[in-house]
Amino acid sequence: MAEKLIVIGGTAAGLSAASKAKRVKPELEIQVFEKSGYISYGACGLPYFVGGMIAEPDDLVAVNAETMRNKRGIPTWIHHEVTSINRGEKTVAVKNLDTGEERIHPYDKLVIATGAVPAAPPIPGIHSEGVYYLRTVEDGIRLKATVQREAKSAVIIGGGFIGLELAEELTLSGVSVTIFEQLPRLLPFLDPVFSQSVLENLERHGVKVHTGTGVAEILTQDGRARWVRTPQGETLETDFVLVSAGVKPASGLAGQAGLTLGLKGAIVVDDEMRTSDPDIWACGDCVQMKQLITGEPVYVPLGTTANKQGRIAGGNVAGGHDTFKGVLGSTVTKVFEQYIASTGLSLEQAQAAGYQAVSTMITKMDRASYYPGGRDNQICLIFDRKTGRLLGAQGIGSESIAGRINVLATAITCGMTVEAVNELDLVYAPPVAPVYDPILIAASQAVKKVEKQVK
Amino acid sequence: MAEKLIVIGGTAAGLSAASKAKRVKPELEIQVFEKSGYISYGACGLPYFVGGMIAEPDDLVAVNAETMRNKRGIPTWIHHEVTSINRGEKTVAVKNLDTGEERIHPYDKLVIATGAVPAAPPIPGIHSEGVYYLRTVEDGIRLKATVQREAKSAVIIGGGFIGLELAEELTLSGVSVTIFEQLPRLLPFLDPVFSQSVLENLERHGVKVHTGTGVAEILTQDGRARWVRTPQGETLETDFVLVSAGVKPASGLAGQAGLTLGLKGAIVVDDEMRTSDPDIWACGDCVQMKQLITGEPVYVPLGTTANKQGRIAGGNVAGGHDTFKGVLGSTVTKVFEQYIASTGLSLEQAQAAGYQAVSTMITKMDRASYYPGGRDNQICLIFDRKTGRLLGAQGIGSESIAGRINVLATAITCGMTVEAVNELDLVYAPPVAPVYDPILIAASQAVKKVEKQVK
Repeated sequence: MAEKLIVIGGTAAGLSAASKAKRVKPELEIQVFEKSGYISYGACGLPYFVGGMIAEPDDLVAVNAETMRNKRGIPTWIHHEVTSINRGEKTVAVKNLDTGEERIHPYDKLVIATGAVPAAPPIPGIHSEGVYYLRTVEDGIRLKATVQREAKSAVIIGGGFIGLELAEELTLSGVSVTIFEQLPRLLPFLDPVFSQSVLENLERHGVKVHTGTGVAEILTQDGRARWVRTPQGETLETDFVLVSAGVKPASGLAGQAGLTLGLKGAIVVDDEMRTSDPDIWACGDCVQMKQLITGEPVYVPLGTTANKQGRIAGGNVAGGHDTFKGVLGSTVTKVFEQYIASTGLSLEQAQAAGYQAVSTMITKMDRASYYPGGRDNQICLIFDRKTGRLLGAQGIGSESIAGRINVLATAITCGMTVEAVNELDLVYAPPVAPVYDPILIAASQAVKKVEKQVK
Repeated sequence: MAEKLIVIGGTAAGLSAASKAKRVKPELEIQVFEKSGYISYGACGLPYFVGGMIAEPDDLVAVNAETMRNKRGIPTWIHHEVTSINRGEKTVAVKNLDTGEERIHPYDKLVIATGAVPAAPPIPGIHSEGVYYLRTVEDGIRLKATVQREAKSAVIIGGGFIGLELAEELTLSGVSVTIFEQLPRLLPFLDPVFSQSVLENLERHGVKVHTGTGVAEILTQDGRARWVRTPQGETLETDFVLVSAGVKPASGLAGQAGLTLGLKGAIVVDDEMRTSDPDIWACGDCVQMKQLITGEPVYVPLGTTANKQGRIAGGNVAGGHDTFKGVLGSTVTKVFEQYIASTGLSLEQAQAAGYQAVSTMITKMDRASYYPGGRDNQICLIFDRKTGRLLGAQGIGSESIAGRINVLATAITCGMTVEAVNELDLVYAPPVAPVYDPILIAASQAVKKVEKQVK
């Protein structure tokens, strides 16, 4: 009888795992169960769907269930929630959310790709109508309908990526946005100078930002969120509230099944993405992973990582021994015309990890000074002042900052020193970069702070 | 008595050397002699000056002679040509081109940064009036005056970077441009598919391109270029001719002084940029350098390299022992909306260097498919199919291709395999990149061609 693989979760990690496993071992009998009504959707595109740049939910969907079934030979079920895992019997209980019917499915191998769920801060009123999250397509559809019902004002609790991207999109839709960030600054993994720049950019576009101030209470009218009250007692009227206060791993099923959980409750896996049960793999936003530089466990849920881990888990389910080397946490976001990117360790993280970490920051135009249309790129490098090893990099500026941070992510991955970065042979043409690329300017500044010049 | 340093040549390499030497050893008595009327100009900006995007020659100048003298303490003389080097006496003869006066200057140390001169193909009529090059600011001023005298048509001989950039600028100025490239395709270091794409892009914008066809003769009227004749006997009328057929090292002075010359007559230097005379260093477009991957001597004149080498030579003149590790030959150019970038070895170069080189090419959008405004990026990777080592990379597409090729240049510098590139943790957001960056798509294709999977 054919070996049975069940995959729980039909977005990035789950579908990558299922597809890879099928490619490597076509005789595998695979089924994918997805709780929501959509598979394979680009969750990172939801702010642009809400803002209207993307018209239909289906535009966010890369592969639908029909294609999975007919083209890839992988029956994939939406509105099917796995409600429990029985490791002894090697079965899962699956509930059809449309009919309420529950069935038991046997498995030989299991992949858990249940993702993450938005964190809900313990604020009175947080569970009211009119309080939104933005994680699933259904979340997006609900929020978009609200925005289109002539919403004039919005409060965003938390200044995460989704919150900032949505602040942009709502502002462009004519909604007046106020952000409350409990921490002293936005995107606190960034250098304080960069956090300030992000704040000023938002304010320049009319977004009101309160840092160091959470929301004490959400007040309702007819059961619907209508005001927020600050700890200082001020109240602010709003048409709706969006919560963007981070996510937590959706590891309830795994926990109930007795699998080992780690940081923030994320599922513990080895480098081959195998859980504490040898027949169960897990991947994506529900797992704990290894920081590439320090080797320490971290919880860094990212779409890029989810896809890679899914592919690795799928290959290993099919008999491979591929390993996930670790995560740098490379990210980028666009807020109006400002692009914000980072990779590796922040200064605080690097110091906490025991490095003699220091940082340096430069500002340099992204093209030759005489070529029109240039914009400043600001780059911050975090490095060890004893060895010169590059540990982290952050950048703010034009779209090209993304490529520059990718260069530095590559350098970090290879263990380069700032001296070696300073010698990189990078491309140059007046419309694209200055003759000394901002990366090289940053590295040459950093070299001066390295204690013992290696060269 | 203070040690005397004379620097011959006042552009990228020469001024970098002089400035660095002065910073490290302020007591050095430095003089810079520059033959032309401009120092420190961005030669790569000349096409945009001719096209009118940059108004004044001085806009291309980063530092003028006055600043060099007064702020940096380095007397710098324009219109001063070094006519000979007497290594026995340790003097140079310098002619003031404004007065005709010639003087002998003693030196303790000498830096030769004489750059390169445009190659003039042996075509009858090539020395006529109305035949232009574009290397110096004076060249640019002359050419711009001609374009502005209501030129309607231009013939460009050679399809180098300057030729293509100028084809863009002239077309945008309303001049009808015809390019004759003797080689079978444009930019022959590129994959043939990319060369074809560059050609089609030019033609789409109305530039006429003849490949595999040189110009047999330039015909004149009243001593001025007026027609070109092809080997097939066709003649084409034109208002002027521009020659963009590469450059050759300006090593005449060095050769006459008996310094060792290498490839194409470029000055041979060691890793510390020292010539065969221990008191003479050379740097920039006049020297032979080392290919970073193969270690073999190459002649790859680039502004980025010239600046770096100048800084190294200057530091070493002042007592340092910094080394130039080698050149990858990373380049980028913009032709209308198309950006063309490359780094490392071409397939032919890699095979000639003894690698079991193969290549792979992919096309992938530069942002999430659902985010508006995305453009295709095409990436070609050249790698060793035995070891998987990345040897070269080329890309065509939107501006972001520059950053992607820089990532791959960094990977090549670190000796990464395509497997390792495939695991890179790169940034992702829908407006900036797809979840699998084109780099990763290219690497994952390449991995399939590697014979013995390392993992």
